[in-house]
Parts: sequence; structure tokens; C-alpha cells
Amino acid sequence: MSKYDTYFQMAVGDVVDFTLKKTKDYIDWDIETMEAIVPPEHGNLNHVYRVLDGKGNSIFIKQASRTLRISEDMTATLDRNRLESELLIIQDKYVPGMVPKIYFYDTVMSASGMEDCTDYTVMRNAMLAHEIFPHFADDISTFMVNTLLMTSDVVMNHVEKKKRIKEFINPDLCDITEKLVLMEPYMDLYDRNNVYPPNADFVQKELYNDEALHLEVAKLKFNFMTNAQALIHGDLHTGSIFISQNNTKVFDPEFGTFAPMGYDTGNVIANLVFAYGNGLVYDKKDFCQWVLDTIRDTLDLFIEKFTLLYEQEATEPMAKIDGFKEWYLNSILDDTAGYAGTELHRRTVGMANVTDLTTIEDEEKRSLAERICIYLGKELILNQANYRTGDDYVRAVYESEKKAKASL
Amino acid sequence: MSKYDTYFQMAVGDVVDFTLKKTKDYIDWDIETMEAIVPPEHGNLNHVYRVLDGKGNSIFIKQASRTLRISEDMTATLDRNRLESELLIIQDKYVPGMVPKIYFYDTVMSASGMEDCTDYTVMRNAMLAHEIFPHFADDISTFMVNTLLMTSDVVMNHVEKKKRIKEFINPDLCDITEKLVLMEPYMDLYDRNNVYPPNADFVQKELYNDEALHLEVAKLKFNFMTNAQALIHGDLHTGSIFISQNNTKVFDPEFGTFAPMGYDTGNVIANLVFAYGNGLVYDKKDFCQWVLDTIRDTLDLFIEKFTLLYEQEATEPMAKIDGFKEWYLNSILDDTAGYAGTELHRRTVGMANVTDLTTIEDEEKRSLAERICIYLGKELILNQANYRTGDDYVRAVYESEKKAKASL
Repeated sequence: MSKYDTYFQMAVGDVVDFTLKKTKDYIDWDIETMEAIVPPEHGNLNHVYRVLDGKGNSIFIKQASRTLRISEDMTATLDRNRLESELLIIQDKYVPGMVPKIYFYDTVMSASGMEDCTDYTVMRNAMLAHEIFPHFADDISTFMVNTLLMTSDVVMNHVEKKKRIKEFINPDLCDITEKLVLMEPYMDLYDRNNVYPPNADFVQKELYNDEALHLEVAKLKFNFMTNAQALIHGDLHTGSIFISQNNTKVFDPEFGTFAPMGYDTGNVIANLVFAYGNGLVYDKKDFCQWVLDTIRDTLDLFIEKFTLLYEQEATEPMAKIDGFKEWYLNSILDDTAGYAGTELHRRTVGMANVTDLTTIEDEEKRSLAERICIYLGKELILNQANYRTGDDYVRAVYESEKKAKASL
Repeated sequence: MSKYDTYFQMAVGDVVDFTLKKTKDYIDWDIETMEAIVPPEHGNLNHVYRVLDGKGNSIFIKQASRTLRISEDMTATLDRNRLESELLIIQDKYVPGMVPKIYFYDTVMSASGMEDCTDYTVMRNAMLAHEIFPHFADDISTFMVNTLLMTSDVVMNHVEKKKRIKEFINPDLCDITEKLVLMEPYMDLYDRNNVYPPNADFVQKELYNDEALHLEVAKLKFNFMTNAQALIHGDLHTGSIFISQNNTKVFDPEFGTFAPMGYDTGNVIANLVFAYGNGLVYDKKDFCQWVLDTIRDTLDLFIEKFTLLYEQEATEPMAKIDGFKEWYLNSILDDTAGYAGTELHRRTVGMANVTDLTTIEDEEKRSLAERICIYLGKELILNQANYRTGDDYVRAVYESEKKAKASL
């Protein structure tokens, strides 16, 4: 019997021993100087440790806990750690080096050993400091096109894909998305939204009382629940992205499942808009321009690379019929706008807000940044078919800004 | 070690012993007079035996074989028998008595023991004899509404539904549908379509050369592959229905999986049209009128009962938003028309034809019946949004009949 034959929640003191046991065959640890620390950045769902030694070896250990750090009321299967590790291994095949390397995962302890990416910054934090990353649009569009299109029925063998769907059915995490993203921002059903009090009436009017908006969100919710289009990351926000001046690594795919591609693309765009709102109220003009360029380029490069890869890799005969690619891409672009909208709303008024907005101390400025997100989200959800190019988004950001200013 | 600890394909001589072993605790067999026979009706995928005794006990034994009876080239996992038995048990909960009772299923032997329904007729055969079943529209609409709506996200708990999706992922059988139904009738990709030679040019022109049609079929194919809407039967044709003057029992759900509801509803309508074509060329006016009434009533009763059950049973808060039910039902009606169209085509020109058409000996009459199905299928696929009531279908049958007559 080993200490690790039954799951227990490790304390920091257990982690060195566990790491050594799991990795001693391929990492040449200096045992004397090995230590485990809790890094300042934590996810909402897991316990994360950094293990390092005096020789420069280091690794991250991520263990799923039985209750979610975000809320003790919510539980998620420990299996999410297995799922995340397997997903990172698959993604690494389609976008080599663009996700952290997985050293191991231990199904009993629900813990994985993962590449230490502390020389990168979490993108949301870097953008809070108004840093600029000119390569990001190029990187993230490659990441999305390759991971999404290659796992869709356009390319993947259908029998193989159905086996993958089975492997990545993710009921607990999908339940969180279905409630926190695709319902509660519009009806606060469980009384756990975090609405900024100065915007309470605005939220009531624009989100809670708009039945036409609710109908479109309901369609997006059902689309998310039923459309097993591709293996998505499922939580592709700037807090799930490590970035440096040269590279981008996407992590934390524990919400990964087969779902609409537009959920990922929409999340990226929405989270860039939060950064824009922050930059705007702190009057960071260059930063704001870079964010808008990045929104535009991310979408345009996604379309360009998607079209190219589709032509190169499509295996499904019916996907090669004239007009199908365009129809398929347009449905992804509809979804992109729709889910960008729901992400804009849920991160502004839902349970899990973003620091891009919550760290704005001035009341009027925070109200303004939030209203831009709320107006833009509504516009995107209600007029999905109008969003076909990057410029369409940039224009809509400016218009929402104008509307938000006028509303204050 | 029992004889049945490892899978083998049973011969008729093994079946009595196997049946006794599995059912002796709850069926009081008269062992002396027990015998197993191969019934005249066989499915395409399984070996079926009827076991009976002199006291009136009887049961059906269905064993999955490694190769499909329809073609030695095609294989399907033996697991399909487990899936079918579990599905019948679930359906029996939603429509008690409308599916054959399952006595047992044996995962090792991939064999199930099922209620003997030999006092019923297979509906396709009864319709070949132009028999009329006035209760059918009422029964089948109840069957579809209850099995489909209750297993959709409108009603079923989403976490529970995702576990069910996992259980009913059906890669091998879906692969058959995706190829035989949703591709080959339009491009004969594997050179195994069965096209009636006098209609060869017609099929070339109307099905193989129509790119606009192919595009719509491609969308239907992707919808089938990705849209896990509800737990469908998956092969709901008149050969999968036992009928009597009083009752209806649906069997053979081995293609069951989570897929668009309209696949089931469309199949029922298409298979009624085959019966209509047969009745027409044999000049059976009362029968034809009953078939058309049944098409109309099946659709109208489906809509009526669906609406009622939705209002009673919907649990999903977003499904209760004004306008959502109508939007959701319309998408099912679109799919109904689309998949009725693909079924009309594949059963006329694909690998698995229907006896309703193939038994018509007169060349011109068979050509006519087939062309009605081909024209109607195209109309339904290309104009899905026009099919909202039963009368829309009846009108389209008449119009296709006119067009088919003019084309000969």
C-alpha cells in the first residue's frame, strides 16, 4: 500500500514527496533543495503547487479538490483532472508547444504534473498593466483553428470523433457553464450574481428585463448543450493564457468538451473587450489601439486560417460540396458573436467577475466600462449575423462606447 | 466455466438451453416441449429466434452477430445489443407497453430475451396487404412525443442527460446512417446503391447531379452528427413497428442515440409515403386515403401533444421563455421535413430499398411510385420551412404525384 493509493487532498507538505515519487525517473531532482510552494495565481477549481529545486528543475502540480474554490456549494467530479490532462496532450498534437507539457497524471490522486510556465505572465494580469503583445492575434488564431477544426466532423473520422465525445463528456463543468454563463446573468436565478451597485438599475433594465435578449440566450444555451461540434477549450479567457513577448501557451482546459467552436472564439474576443474597457478608463491609448487591432486580427486571421486548413484537411465528402464551407463558417461566426455576448455579460454581472473591471476604483469609470460590455454583449447576441469580419467588432466596440457614455 | 462465458454465435440448437438458463427463474417452461425456431422475419443486423413450449410460453431471443446480415463487409459492435435493451427499458418508462418487454440481456453473449410479439404484424407487411390501422397516428405520435421530449434538455436534467449521451454514443450504427442515408443516395460513393434501372437516368439527374440538394443534405448530415437533441429510436420505419387492430409496439431501436428528434418523425412520414406509393399503383383508394390521413394526423397530433407535454413537463428555465417553444418546435419541423426527404431517397435508390417499392412488378408503375418519392424528398429537403402542418405534407404528396406522372 502506498500513501497515494486513495485520494486525499494534499497539503503543501505532501507535495514534494508525491512529485518525487511520480517524476524521479525522468527529472533529476536535487532532493536536498526540493520544495513546494503555493504560487500567487490560483484557479477557481483546483489546488496548485510549484515544486522546484536549487538546480533549476521545476514543475507544477495541480490537484482537483472535491469542492470548488470558487464556492463550497459547487462540486465537480475529480475526473476533471484526467480530462484536462488528456485534453492538453491532444491539443499539444495539433498546436505543438502552445499548451503546457504534461509530465504525468495520477487518476487516484486526481493530480497532474505540468510544465512550469512561471517565466510567462498570465495574460489578464499583463493586460491590467497595459502591456502589449503584438503576436497574440496570430498565435491565438492558430491555436483555435487547429484545435477546433481538426477535432470537428469536417476532418476527424466520425467513428473516432464519437469515441472522443464519449471520453470528454463533461457533465459537471458543463453544468457550471450552462448556469453561470448562459442563464444567471439574465435572471439571477440563484441570487449569486455580483452586480456593481451603481449599475444595478441599468442591469435590471438591460439584462434582467429584456425578454427578446433572453430568447436569443436560450437558443445559445441549447446550442451549447446539444451541438457537439468540436473539442473546445471551454474557458478560453485571458486568465487561461500564459504569454510572453515571444510565445503564447493556453492552459486550464478543464471545461473542455465537444461543443460549438464559437464558444472559444467568442470568449477570446469578449476578454479582449474587458481589457479595452480597462485601458480606456485609464486613458491608455496605445494599449487600446493594440487591443482593437488584436480583436480585428484575431477574427480575420481565424477566418483566413480556417479557410486554408479546411481546404487542406477536410476528409468528409459532404463538407467539400460547394457552399458548405461558407455555410459552416458563417454558423461559427454567428456563435462567436453570440458567445462573446454571453461572456461579456456574465463576467460583468455574473458570479465570476473579471479584474479588468473590478479593479477600476472610480465609480463613473467602472460604470462606463461595464456598460460598454453590457451594450456590446446585447448587440452581439441580438445581431449575430452582422458580425462577419474583425472590423464589424471594432465598429461595435466604438458604438457601445458612445452609447455607454450617453447613458451615464 | 459455463458454456456462455465467452461470446459465440449461437446455432438454433443452442438457443433452448441458453433461454432456459437465463429465464427459468421467472418463466415456468415445459422443458419437454420447448423448441427454438427461426421466424420468417429477420432484421438486417441480428439473428433472431423464437423459443416456445407446448404450454403457451414464448420469448424472442435476439443475438447480435459480428458481421451484419445485410452485408458481410459491414461490422458493428456487439455492444449494440446492450444498447438496444437499455433503450427499450427507458422507452418503456415513457410509453409503457409501446415497446416489447425486455426479460434479460446478456452482455457476454450479446443476446437479449424479449417479449414475443408474433400476435402482431410487422406494419410494413400489413401495409403491403393494404390493411388499415385507424389508431396508428394517435399511437405513434404519443410514442414520439413522449420518448423524444422527455429525453431532451427541455425536460431531462442536463447532468443526467450527459451521462445518458455517454451511454448511448453509438459510433458504428451512426456511421451506417451517416453513409447509407445521408450521403450515398446522392453520390453512390461506394458503388452499392440499388437503383431501379428504368429510373437510372432520372436518379442521375434528380439526385446525383443536383448540387443545391447536396448542400442541404450536407447540412442535415452535420446536424445528425452533432446535434444531441434527444434519445431517438434512430430507425423508426414501418419494419420496426409491430401493429394490430388495437395496439402498436415499436421495436429494433439499435440505432438509438442522442440525435435530432426530426430524424424519427421524418422516418415515420417517409415510410407512410412508401405505403401510399404502393397503394396508389395497386389502385387501393381507401388505403391511400387512410395513409394520407395518417400522415396528416401524425404530424398534427405530434405538434399538439408536443405542445401540451412541453407545457406540463419543461424543467429548463430558459425553455420557458416566451417564443422559445415555438422556435424549438419549428426547428424540429424543419428537421422532420429534411430527414423525411433523405429517408424517401435512400430507401428508393440506396443500399436498403423497401418492399413497398421493390415488389411492384409493373415497370411503369414502379417507376411512378419511385419518382413520387424522389420528387417529394427533394421538395421536403429544399423547402423545409414550408412544412408546418400535416396538410402541407398531403398537398406535397399530391403535387409530387402530378410531377411524377408528367415525367414518365
